[in-house]
Amino acid sequence: MKKVVSAEVAASLVKDGMVIGVSGFSPSGYPKAVPLALAQRVKNTGEKMKLTLYTGASVGAEIDGAWSEVGIISKRMPYQTNSSLRNNINKGLTEYIDMNLSVMPQFINYGFLPKVNIAIVEALGITEEGNIIPTTAVGNTATYVANADKIIIEVNENQPLSLEGIADIYTLENPPFRKPIPITHTGDRIGTTYIPCKLEKIVAVVMTNMPDKTRPLKAMDETSKAISKNLIEFLENEVKERRLPENLLPIQSGVGSVANAVLAGLCESKLKNLTCYTEVIQDSMLDLIRCGKAKMVSSTALCPSPAGMEDFRRDLDSLKDKIILRPQEISNNPEVIRRLGVIAINTALEVDIYGNVNSTHVMGTKMMNGIGGSGDFAENASLTIFTTESIAKKGNISTIVPIVSHVDHTEHNVMVIVTEQGTADLRGKSPKERALAIINNCAHPDYRPQLLEYLEKAQECSGKHTPHVLCDALSWHIRFMETGTMKKKFIKFTFGNDENNDKLIVS
Amino acid sequence: MKKVVSAEVAASLVKDGMVIGVSGFSPSGYPKAVPLALAQRVKNTGEKMKLTLYTGASVGAEIDGAWSEVGIISKRMPYQTNSSLRNNINKGLTEYIDMNLSVMPQFINYGFLPKVNIAIVEALGITEEGNIIPTTAVGNTATYVANADKIIIEVNENQPLSLEGIADIYTLENPPFRKPIPITHTGDRIGTTYIPCKLEKIVAVVMTNMPDKTRPLKAMDETSKAISKNLIEFLENEVKERRLPENLLPIQSGVGSVANAVLAGLCESKLKNLTCYTEVIQDSMLDLIRCGKAKMVSSTALCPSPAGMEDFRRDLDSLKDKIILRPQEISNNPEVIRRLGVIAINTALEVDIYGNVNSTHVMGTKMMNGIGGSGDFAENASLTIFTTESIAKKGNISTIVPIVSHVDHTEHNVMVIVTEQGTADLRGKSPKERALAIINNCAHPDYRPQLLEYLEKAQECSGKHTPHVLCDALSWHIRFMETGTMKKKFIKFTFGNDENNDKLIVS
Repeated sequence: MKKVVSAEVAASLVKDGMVIGVSGFSPSGYPKAVPLALAQRVKNTGEKMKLTLYTGASVGAEIDGAWSEVGIISKRMPYQTNSSLRNNINKGLTEYIDMNLSVMPQFINYGFLPKVNIAIVEALGITEEGNIIPTTAVGNTATYVANADKIIIEVNENQPLSLEGIADIYTLENPPFRKPIPITHTGDRIGTTYIPCKLEKIVAVVMTNMPDKTRPLKAMDETSKAISKNLIEFLENEVKERRLPENLLPIQSGVGSVANAVLAGLCESKLKNLTCYTEVIQDSMLDLIRCGKAKMVSSTALCPSPAGMEDFRRDLDSLKDKIILRPQEISNNPEVIRRLGVIAINTALEVDIYGNVNSTHVMGTKMMNGIGGSGDFAENASLTIFTTESIAKKGNISTIVPIVSHVDHTEHNVMVIVTEQGTADLRGKSPKERALAIINNCAHPDYRPQLLEYLEKAQECSGKHTPHVLCDALSWHIRFMETGTMKKKFIKFTFGNDENNDKLIVS
Repeated sequence: MKKVVSAEVAASLVKDGMVIGVSGFSPSGYPKAVPLALAQRVKNTGEKMKLTLYTGASVGAEIDGAWSEVGIISKRMPYQTNSSLRNNINKGLTEYIDMNLSVMPQFINYGFLPKVNIAIVEALGITEEGNIIPTTAVGNTATYVANADKIIIEVNENQPLSLEGIADIYTLENPPFRKPIPITHTGDRIGTTYIPCKLEKIVAVVMTNMPDKTRPLKAMDETSKAISKNLIEFLENEVKERRLPENLLPIQSGVGSVANAVLAGLCESKLKNLTCYTEVIQDSMLDLIRCGKAKMVSSTALCPSPAGMEDFRRDLDSLKDKIILRPQEISNNPEVIRRLGVIAINTALEVDIYGNVNSTHVMGTKMMNGIGGSGDFAENASLTIFTTESIAKKGNISTIVPIVSHVDHTEHNVMVIVTEQGTADLRGKSPKERALAIINNCAHPDYRPQLLEYLEKAQECSGKHTPHVLCDALSWHIRFMETGTMKKKFIKFTFGNDENNDKLIVS
């Protein structure tokens, strides 16, 4: 209790050049008051402050937003979703390392990254020994707490105390001492409900009462519903063909409107006794428990919308024994994902005709959010599925392109593509067979002829394993940037004098 | 014994349209007489024959070569290295599915691929119960034997009988029944020395006496030695900085002259008590045991050069207890690779300035060999290292390019690049930081100015997270195909009539 101080006093411990590790994942369970106090101070004083910031995944505007606005994040890893920070990344003001989320904690433990100077951690409370009870996210908190020189705790009275017990903290030894992770079912509890911490490392405790700034839920549109319908039909057929058990295998689902629609679709399907082994729990996953379809959900963060959080708090007692929050080195661990046979469902920004997926880069150069956990799951799932609407920007972008402008998931890992147009099952197909499946089943009809034309031209002029016209491969992206659409138009350029009338037709 | 027949009689069981699964990995332990008899028959009769061929990895010319020459492989997975087959793949005559090697067996077990009609398996012998003693490779044999309707065994008297006992056969249940793989050290034996098989499934036994057609060893050149030196210096520094234990962690090494040089370099280094958790054992890895540096080697195949095989047979009794051959679903399993903290060392065809690696496609379209096990290891290793000579084709190709023409390993997984020029440590670096490290440390001096020029231009005109000039990104490959070199030349094109003298300078 002697350590209880104001957010401003705690923030005064943070010095220029430090590495700060914070709790939080998928804007939930992150510290709020101390980061805000630090940003305010820098704003007022104009002092020099450049920090390296480690998180679980995305954190709220109180950190990524406020810190980016005063320009104090020089380096950031492993994931973000904040618009101010994104701006700084794409302007070259913040160096961002976009990492597989399961790898971040072992990069710390292996000494591959600079040590954490101060960990700032949101907690429900602290035990007499100094152990920390996490709130709505576990993320990398246990790793940063173990690695940090000093720890600042924000005890957030806004978080429901009955969250205690939902966490299952189990961390990994470094090789060569690492043991098998003893999880064989989604619901296996293998650790403690608190994050082990030595009391003397805690240098300040700040009392707060601030809600997680989670994202409001977007309304489910017809396109998302069509994607969901195609995906669930695919899964039901897998059951029918005995390639999946009747209750499927544990589901991992990314976030966003398509993910919400898919989970809502599962609520209405005939499937039952489902489980989820995932990294974020959003509204529709809670609904899946409520409607009796999901019997157990393992995750590293609880991140319903503000309205969904209200409902969650009301139902917490009945939901609690069906939810486990694990450190992300467990929730996203390849070992467990491969063993359980997780079905990974994530969103692509764009997909190429050979099945490579871009999840991160707009037009190959600008960061959207990051790969997040999709790599951990896509590389190890029993079924790796990517969803995307077939078009974007009012039809001026085809999300199915000749070649993706950045690769996050390779042809070797991607098994199924689902758009509102249909489903392409890529398993056991060669690149050319994949191209036909993706173009004919998933591409928007407006772009199919243009894609088939590319494929045909490519087969005439290059190696026939993965045919490409290298000088045209990225032309769709270039055309969009130059003309505002990926659709082909014929433009005439006139060279020379008019009498001579030399023309070069540029498509 | 009643089942012993000639190769021709056994081959007569193979019918048009069948799926054939064979033993063998990295041309070793594959069946020889029956495939040759089949090819000979098709050559003589001209009968219609289109087969789907599953293997462990590459197999010898007796299958991939002879079958490709008579055009009977319509579909092939998951890996190959044969020149005739490669030709057919790149001509579009064979559909090739280039897969992560750990995934192939579970694709069979999950029913994702057509069932195996006939498995053709090389064996040292068969027990009374029908169990099969494998020879120099384990690969996917256990999976194909369990999955096949019928099994043909080639008992190869050319293989040394004292190989018996070297194999450790442990296979995986499908989810949700899969259990942790109980390997915590390279040398843990967890299974049987034979491949379980029901006697009644064996429909024919053929006696043969034919050596594995392994590849002769290339002489170690100065460039490979320089790469090896840089890599070992890097590893020794990791030990010094306490990021690796003194005896490192288990090493996985790809094949080829650089791999051989690296392992030879380890023999001469100060490092000791090493282990290898890998997929192929070549000459230099056996030397690593002989010189006392490696105390245990786990693999799925034994594939020394013809001369190395002679030496191996001589030393077999003393080497045997330091070698384990596992099914590739264990040797390449993400769970074990991540747990043991394997150091993965593989070869890149080309690397881009942001750390993406192409291992498979020449100029983006032609298949070289395939990803093999490099994906399984690169995605899960504690240290993921790629080596490449900085130039190829007498300096006309820079293996460091603005953007790779195909991505097999993404920026999210690649940690270290080593060329004969030096080492780029990409851990904790943003894309732009990686670009400078790779250009300055790894690129050939002839290409550095051109790469820096690209990076500079890209930073002026695009998103600054991963800067690219999309219309120039693949221009290095296009230039090579058009002019025979990636080096920039200035060519003048004249449009219009000469009087008007309109010029367009195209670089």
